[in-house]
Amino acid sequence: MSCIFCKIISGELPSYKVYEDEFTLAFLDINPVNPGHTLVVPKRHVTNIEAVDEETLCQVVKAVKKVGLSLKKNLGVAGYNLGVNNDPVAGQVVAHLHFHIIPRLAGDGFKLWPQKEYGDGEAEAVFAKIKI
Amino acid sequence: MSCIFCKIISGELPSYKVYEDEFTLAFLDINPVNPGHTLVVPKRHVTNIEAVDEETLCQVVKAVKKVGLSLKKNLGVAGYNLGVNNDPVAGQVVAHLHFHIIPRLAGDGFKLWPQKEYGDGEAEAVFAKIKI
Repeated sequence: MSCIFCKIISGELPSYKVYEDEFTLAFLDINPVNPGHTLVVPKRHVTNIEAVDEETLCQVVKAVKKVGLSLKKNLGVAGYNLGVNNDPVAGQVVAHLHFHIIPRLAGDGFKLWPQKEYGDGEAEAVFAKIKI
Repeated sequence: MSCIFCKIISGELPSYKVYEDEFTLAFLDINPVNPGHTLVVPKRHVTNIEAVDEETLCQVVKAVKKVGLSLKKNLGVAGYNLGVNNDPVAGQVVAHLHFHIIPRLAGDGFKLWPQKEYGDGEAEAVFAKIKI
C-alpha cells in the first residue's frame, strides 16, 4: 500500500482528522491555501471521480457539506472554494480522489481562473461533441 | 424570478444543454476557461452547498460524473477541474449553486492556487476549532 492517503486513513501516517464516518475521512491539508484548508476523501482507494461509485461519491459530498458548515461556523469565514483536481493534467498529485475545501477571507489574494469567450461557431461545435 | 440560472432552467433564456434530468441541468458556461467548460446546477433554486438538501446534492454530483465522462470521452481531454465558488467571498457571482467542470489540456496555462505552510501551533489551533 503506497498511497499516502490510504496510510492516513489507516492511521499509519498521522493527520488532523476533522471529520470521519464509515465511508469518508476529512483531514487538514498540511500545505493550506488558507488555514483550515481541508481534504475530504473516500476511505476506499479510488483514483478519481470516474472511478468512484455513485453512492460513495454521495457520501463524500455529504461530508464536504458538514465540513464546510464547520469552517463557516467555527472559523468565521464567509465562504469557501470546493475543488477537485481530477487527473494529473488537472493538477492531481495524490492518485486518491480528494475534495479540497478552502476557506476564504476577504482580500486573501486567491485568484480564480481566467475566463474567455467562444469564437464564432466554437460553442456549437463543442456542444455537438459533448451533449449527452 | 430574477435568477439567471432559473431562467435558463425554465427555458426563458437559451443555453447549450449538455445534460438534463429530473433534478439537474448541465449547460455550457458562455465564458469558458477552456472549451467545453460546463456548469451543473440543481433545478431547484438554492444559493449554496449549505442551502441544498443532501439528496439534491447527490443528484448534482451524479450529473457531474456523467458530464465529466462525456468531456473526457468526446473532447479527448485527460482530466478536468471541478470547482464550486461557494458564496460571494469565494467568487460566486450567480447566487444559484453551480459546479464548474473545466476540461484541462496539457500546457493550457491554468494555474492552481498557491499553497503555504502552517506556522508553529497554527494547524493545531485551527484543528481544535473546526473538528466535528
